[in-house]
Amino acid sequence: MSLRYEIRLSGSGGQGLILAGQILAEAAAVYDDKYATQSQSYGPEARGGASRSEVIISDDEIDYPKAVNLDFLLAFTQAACDKYADDLKKDGVLLVDSTEVTKRPPGNFKFFAVPITEIAEKAVGKKVTANLVAVGLIVGLSKIVTPVAAEEALWERVPKGSEEINLQAFQKGLELAERLKPEPLQT
Amino acid sequence: MSLRYEIRLSGSGGQGLILAGQILAEAAAVYDDKYATQSQSYGPEARGGASRSEVIISDDEIDYPKAVNLDFLLAFTQAACDKYADDLKKDGVLLVDSTEVTKRPPGNFKFFAVPITEIAEKAVGKKVTANLVAVGLIVGLSKIVTPVAAEEALWERVPKGSEEINLQAFQKGLELAERLKPEPLQT
Repeated sequence: MSLRYEIRLSGSGGQGLILAGQILAEAAAVYDDKYATQSQSYGPEARGGASRSEVIISDDEIDYPKAVNLDFLLAFTQAACDKYADDLKKDGVLLVDSTEVTKRPPGNFKFFAVPITEIAEKAVGKKVTANLVAVGLIVGLSKIVTPVAAEEALWERVPKGSEEINLQAFQKGLELAERLKPEPLQT
Repeated sequence: MSLRYEIRLSGSGGQGLILAGQILAEAAAVYDDKYATQSQSYGPEARGGASRSEVIISDDEIDYPKAVNLDFLLAFTQAACDKYADDLKKDGVLLVDSTEVTKRPPGNFKFFAVPITEIAEKAVGKKVTANLVAVGLIVGLSKIVTPVAAEEALWERVPKGSEEINLQAFQKGLELAERLKPEPLQT
């Protein structure tokens, strides 16, 4: 069976989730040797400020570009976390920004709570790089794209002049992922 | 039957087709009262520099976010034009950048050839705004989103500091669309 890996990046508008998705997709397809799609859906919730970006990575051409059974969910807000946790497959990964998400939803997944926004602010020095800290964490935890491919894609894709700071944010996330262990299920 | 309108923006990398797609999707969903998806697929052709961005606009939630029967195709390169013209539905619209695309593919569609890149360069003063000239043309020809919604989305989405020039490019495309008639089929 061929690989199909589904990632959803969720939170609110202005958090750079679309850019993060593009970097993951382009890393997989342009630099690693895979196929990828990246998409966003907008509906009434977009008017309320919710944002959602999806990436599918596959060994093969992707016929159905919508995530239905998530391997990886990133949630930047409690609302997004609560809404989407059910879409995770068994043993999927739920990564939340613990700066915002304080309540773990029930379910059979690997759970990582990381103060992503705080790390962007304090360790990198720029809160807006939280999306790239998240990309580093996703690359490190999922191993679905190579770090070098992600760095190449990042360099091409982030606004000119912000490459260095975004790379630093990415690397911070990547390093952190090495040391993380999923939190045990509270029983 | 509910509305489903499929747009594909095709060309090569670096032409801002993803941004153009985002503006159309966000105009439809965030400012007009519709649903929209925006997506891109990357495969081996992305390594060759080809780029493709899709937007689907609907009255209703969108289950299948992949374009299969195009209402509107924008082609910035001859290769993209030749590859995708067959995906247009009968009486769909094919808009090409005549700066690059010189050969009209066969088919039963409304054909518009506009020197989009040249207009961006000469009338707006910045070649990189060709994508926004194209958005203006698409909005004007398709009427699928309102100009005011497109302007709102553009203002939010383009890089800070480039709002005015991109708005100007958009308005140029919009004005042009008013005066265009499809080219008659060569027989």
